[in-house]
Amino acid sequence: MIRLADVQRARQRIRHSVRNTQLSRSRNLSEACGAEIYLKYENHQITGAYKERGALNKLLQLKPEERQKGVVSASAGNHAQAVAYHGQQLGIAVTLLMPKTTPKIKIANTRGHGAKVILHGENFDEAYEEARRLEAEEGLVFVHPFDDPYVIAGQGTLALELLEQEPELDAIVVPIGGGGLIAGIAAVVQSLSPHTRVYGVEAEVSASMRRSLDAGEPQVIEGARTLADGIQVKRPGEITFAMIQELVEDVVTVSEEELVRAVLFLLERDKTLVEGAGAAGAAALLAGRIPNIEGQRVATILCGGNIDLPVLDLIITRGLIMDHRLMRMTFRLPDRPGSLAELLQVIASSRGSVVEIQHHRIFTRSPYWEAKVTVTVETQNRDHGDEILETLTAAGFPPDELEDEEG
Amino acid sequence: MIRLADVQRARQRIRHSVRNTQLSRSRNLSEACGAEIYLKYENHQITGAYKERGALNKLLQLKPEERQKGVVSASAGNHAQAVAYHGQQLGIAVTLLMPKTTPKIKIANTRGHGAKVILHGENFDEAYEEARRLEAEEGLVFVHPFDDPYVIAGQGTLALELLEQEPELDAIVVPIGGGGLIAGIAAVVQSLSPHTRVYGVEAEVSASMRRSLDAGEPQVIEGARTLADGIQVKRPGEITFAMIQELVEDVVTVSEEELVRAVLFLLERDKTLVEGAGAAGAAALLAGRIPNIEGQRVATILCGGNIDLPVLDLIITRGLIMDHRLMRMTFRLPDRPGSLAELLQVIASSRGSVVEIQHHRIFTRSPYWEAKVTVTVETQNRDHGDEILETLTAAGFPPDELEDEEG
Repeated sequence: MIRLADVQRARQRIRHSVRNTQLSRSRNLSEACGAEIYLKYENHQITGAYKERGALNKLLQLKPEERQKGVVSASAGNHAQAVAYHGQQLGIAVTLLMPKTTPKIKIANTRGHGAKVILHGENFDEAYEEARRLEAEEGLVFVHPFDDPYVIAGQGTLALELLEQEPELDAIVVPIGGGGLIAGIAAVVQSLSPHTRVYGVEAEVSASMRRSLDAGEPQVIEGARTLADGIQVKRPGEITFAMIQELVEDVVTVSEEELVRAVLFLLERDKTLVEGAGAAGAAALLAGRIPNIEGQRVATILCGGNIDLPVLDLIITRGLIMDHRLMRMTFRLPDRPGSLAELLQVIASSRGSVVEIQHHRIFTRSPYWEAKVTVTVETQNRDHGDEILETLTAAGFPPDELEDEEG
Repeated sequence: MIRLADVQRARQRIRHSVRNTQLSRSRNLSEACGAEIYLKYENHQITGAYKERGALNKLLQLKPEERQKGVVSASAGNHAQAVAYHGQQLGIAVTLLMPKTTPKIKIANTRGHGAKVILHGENFDEAYEEARRLEAEEGLVFVHPFDDPYVIAGQGTLALELLEQEPELDAIVVPIGGGGLIAGIAAVVQSLSPHTRVYGVEAEVSASMRRSLDAGEPQVIEGARTLADGIQVKRPGEITFAMIQELVEDVVTVSEEELVRAVLFLLERDKTLVEGAGAAGAAALLAGRIPNIEGQRVATILCGGNIDLPVLDLIITRGLIMDHRLMRMTFRLPDRPGSLAELLQVIASSRGSVVEIQHHRIFTRSPYWEAKVTVTVETQNRDHGDEILETLTAAGFPPDELEDEEG
């Protein structure tokens, strides 16, 4: 179990090399949630995530001969960048095992900090096994991404800053992967602000901590891939599990759709880029998963901002479709001159902007006198989208299919 | 001419209702530019842009009977939101003329703040003419977006904050639309830090201030549409032109491609969302347009963050293509079973991820034994993209066409 004093010592060690990131009230989230919501911008750390706190605290513990030999670690991304960056600053050789599914930006950044990167396995756990093998084989120190007292104490430094920046917090909402961040935060909160509730958030499709709490001991799950790749872990840590079981109020889950909405909310309204995992706290708040927060002061951690641009691209498209701000409709039209022009005229009259058309006259299952056309239309908002749908139906063009939340 | 005292008075008036936004050193921009680059996050203002400073200062000047009648204004977006928001806070009726080309998010937000929005004309100047007509016809006070002493003094408050946050600046780089922001900043800098050079930045395709300076008096230009819609103005202000002519070191321009790169740089590296106009300063720095900054301390203003998500989507795609991180290649293949599979095998062997394929066997101009296929491939970076191109060529699949910067 990590105590306040461990975290305070960690802070002394790392304070000159890790940023004390901004905490700001989010007017938009506060309005949307009916509470005072504060955001801690850990996506503004040098490597784009809070992981530097724990990694650096661990590296600064090493004995001279351990530093000399170098360290090895495994990570789906942000921990890797943190170990690589601070290893480079301290002149320690770093080897990193990363799963092959790791976002490209995280691989490129880790290599950019001078680490030796080995892509291994399909998920964190496979990369982890290989890293432990190298630890034994080559006598390197293993830097665990979460289940290590020094790492947990380092992550806890975030809570010291948080409580200085906003002492009167009723709740703190923290994304959970292996549990290192929330364990460190909960240890600090228990000592300094015991009335503050600490909540964890996991992706619904990969909720190993929730499952483990229900079972009363760490469980291994076969989670599906999630947008929140940064918090996808098959099995919680032993130390972190015990601390969370004792200190955390509750662990809730969010759907992939809720993660998409939260990433876009933070981007469009608060102008800040977070990765899926980094938006999990905001997603839980927006979805109403955190109980009894009306009028309360609640902080959540934007724990990372490392997202591949092509993934962000998909999220934007998905989000616009969910909101009917982009509508992809398929129609069956009589295959005669003018029918497509008529359809487009109806769309234009309701001020929708057509952004793409696919017209198939052959190879469809429909009768030969029908053509199939898929039209993608940009609208101003959901109401405008629904209005366009009504106008189309009234004009005799009811869409045969509409790609939306379920589509 | 606005003086320091005007700006100081403005600050007293607006300080409790407008945010003193964060100024941070950007490690990424500093490395890319070989200078110490500081970013002022005006995209974090409540309405997403610095315009509140000037608009609120103007509104707080009104006599009771003027407040009673209400105000009218014209704006391509951010000024509109600023007038609408603070008008609503002060209980002043606001009518806004916005060009039909205004980004949807800016229209929606302006209406969201309770203003009456009239879409009129194709650009700012046409909306402006209509607003002045309503001013005369209905006896409303016109709130000019830039050419008004109170508005300029309000914008200047940004420089007071900037020089407190970082007193030793060698240069400040400011996007220019009508010139209100840079005029206010230059007035303050002249008094408080006369050795600090102030540079303006315009979009190359719509550089009315640059043209006016060259001509020695305000010129009207027919600018093309630009990604930096927030700074697209056909004619600079009279007051702002005179101040800029006297106080500003130089006005430089940036291309649309440079704006795309800067928006993506700030998003991907600094995790912050800015609109095209808001990235103009960073674009000029990244493109090396600001002279003699090596090792110097330079600030630029992220003046706004209001960008439509569909536009951001296009920017991301465009940027990935420019960087060869997304490659769209067209091949002519012998139309026989297996040729497409072979091509895809070569791409797979060089670790490119295929994201889209279009295969046309009919209606091309090529001979009947050839098929045309367009393959879109995601790569890790430019080097990886170029490596894939080489591998393809060596394997007998030289692309017939490659969509890139010129494409």
